[in-house]
Amino acid sequence: MIKNDLFLRALKGESLERPPVWMMRQAGRYLPDFMKLKAKYDFFTRCRTPELATEITVMPIDQVGTDAAILFSDILVVPQAMGVDVQMKDGIGPWLPSPVRTKAAVDKVVVPDVQQELGYVLDAIKLTKITLDNRVPLIGFAGSPWTILCYMVQGQGSKNFDKAKAFCFQEPVAAHQLLQKITDTTIAYLKAKVAAGVDAVQVFDSWGGMLSPVDYQEFSWQYIQQIIDALKEEVPVIAFGKGCWFALKEMSTSGAAALGIDWTCSARNARYLTGGAITLQGNFDPSRLLSPPKEITKMVHQMIDEFGKDKYIVNLGHGILPNIPVENALAFVEAVKSYPR
Amino acid sequence: MIKNDLFLRALKGESLERPPVWMMRQAGRYLPDFMKLKAKYDFFTRCRTPELATEITVMPIDQVGTDAAILFSDILVVPQAMGVDVQMKDGIGPWLPSPVRTKAAVDKVVVPDVQQELGYVLDAIKLTKITLDNRVPLIGFAGSPWTILCYMVQGQGSKNFDKAKAFCFQEPVAAHQLLQKITDTTIAYLKAKVAAGVDAVQVFDSWGGMLSPVDYQEFSWQYIQQIIDALKEEVPVIAFGKGCWFALKEMSTSGAAALGIDWTCSARNARYLTGGAITLQGNFDPSRLLSPPKEITKMVHQMIDEFGKDKYIVNLGHGILPNIPVENALAFVEAVKSYPR
Repeated sequence: MIKNDLFLRALKGESLERPPVWMMRQAGRYLPDFMKLKAKYDFFTRCRTPELATEITVMPIDQVGTDAAILFSDILVVPQAMGVDVQMKDGIGPWLPSPVRTKAAVDKVVVPDVQQELGYVLDAIKLTKITLDNRVPLIGFAGSPWTILCYMVQGQGSKNFDKAKAFCFQEPVAAHQLLQKITDTTIAYLKAKVAAGVDAVQVFDSWGGMLSPVDYQEFSWQYIQQIIDALKEEVPVIAFGKGCWFALKEMSTSGAAALGIDWTCSARNARYLTGGAITLQGNFDPSRLLSPPKEITKMVHQMIDEFGKDKYIVNLGHGILPNIPVENALAFVEAVKSYPR
Repeated sequence: MIKNDLFLRALKGESLERPPVWMMRQAGRYLPDFMKLKAKYDFFTRCRTPELATEITVMPIDQVGTDAAILFSDILVVPQAMGVDVQMKDGIGPWLPSPVRTKAAVDKVVVPDVQQELGYVLDAIKLTKITLDNRVPLIGFAGSPWTILCYMVQGQGSKNFDKAKAFCFQEPVAAHQLLQKITDTTIAYLKAKVAAGVDAVQVFDSWGGMLSPVDYQEFSWQYIQQIIDALKEEVPVIAFGKGCWFALKEMSTSGAAALGIDWTCSARNARYLTGGAITLQGNFDPSRLLSPPKEITKMVHQMIDEFGKDKYIVNLGHGILPNIPVENALAFVEAVKSYPR
């Protein structure tokens, strides 16, 4: 049914002529047409207007030629739906004026009706599926409960999320209550996304690598595992933990269809740590897209050689940076399509 | 000659009754007496006045009881000595108004006479040695060439040092020239520190973990290796790379006397990756010092059990945070001294 199903076949572990390719944050600020919409509509208007979210989601399919689309949205629509005020400030990024830092504040956090509170995302999925017309699969996503907690408690981005960690270490009972509320919301949210039409989901644990391996198990992984357990029968789940190389072994037996790898973990280490059986996704250094296009092509071919063309989805090791020239992003995608050279 | 020589004996790999303990950034902002000096004297005055640097360096020995002192200073005195303007701005941190971003700018960077440009550090070492009166050893330090380049090119702290990486990837020849100039300066600087009296040196590669393993070899490790080669006959060298777990194997055969480990690498992984023969230093999560003191004691004892009491120096996995209560830092140090419990 989906014409280019390389991505879904890679998630199933099928042998392919070449791996599929997409880029985290591919629907974003390196695209001049995105910047035009950004100048006209504020962040949450873009998220909340299905026509805009659809236009942005489809943009990289038309302009860069990736093998999968990922719905334009943000991980912070979830805490917003849970009753926490989330703003997006220029030059600062996410800004939560009333961070959740006490047991009483956790008690006030709502597990919402996702159809009601996040219906605009589901509408965007339906419209995007129609617009994509089965050209490529559509990925839905959510932040990991730990990563969402980081923002809810810290109140903004941070180098070390010290306030979020202090809360977990000093008020572990309240922290786990909050994590469970986020997990319950995320499961309902991703299930609704699947019902609305997404073909796969990815859980982003952007800040899991801030935790020690023991704390990662306690405050992050067990909740991601709940999400995988709840979703895996319905849809392939990709788990991506930035800096979480130390947990790859456990992740590899979690029921996830694929694991995202960041650029500090070599293909060899990633295959070794995950036992060689699971599909891996990554792991080009986003900053390396600043290299000249010829070098990008060479490095991408080498990366595929190292991961192997099967059980592999080419991606960056984190989101694409705003200052990447479109021609460099194109060189990245084209290098995959020209494999084997 | 040095009364408490646990730290130096651990660096030699001797079997000890308990491991030594110190904390990265132990001479700093969690100490109320430091804050009093901070209120009176600006950052570089504290660095440049031997009496102040000495007072701050000795403070944690008297007040927290660590087994080694580390000279109060900053890694950015090196680029400053190389002719680059470095300021310290409240709320921002390091601020370099004229970052080095072109070949022409690299050409202007000076390899200075360290006796002349950094004599104040050497004076502080001599005064600190007298003041310490051989109670504990004194550690001197420098940033890794890559980490110094990060600040010189980016011009300030950053989540991803995108401008620094762009410079390396787009102007590799100029980047290597700059890295070599920093390396030559650092070697001369550390040799002068040894001559002035430090008992060991540590190289801090705070941002090595931003690089892929291949880029780490090219832009960071080869220069740290030069520093180790130049110093190792004179003094024990500790190499600490935050996020550099992927390079631990190579580091372990570098001639370094010990390797710093961050908190994302378990003791088991660290021993495995380094082959078990080299002294390791670390790796308590700095944020975990926000836990109640009783928990800190328990976790420290467990950490020593996991690393083993020999070939081990207890430390944090990165610098101590400003918001740590002194009693928690004390609990950390006391836990080591009460080992085996």
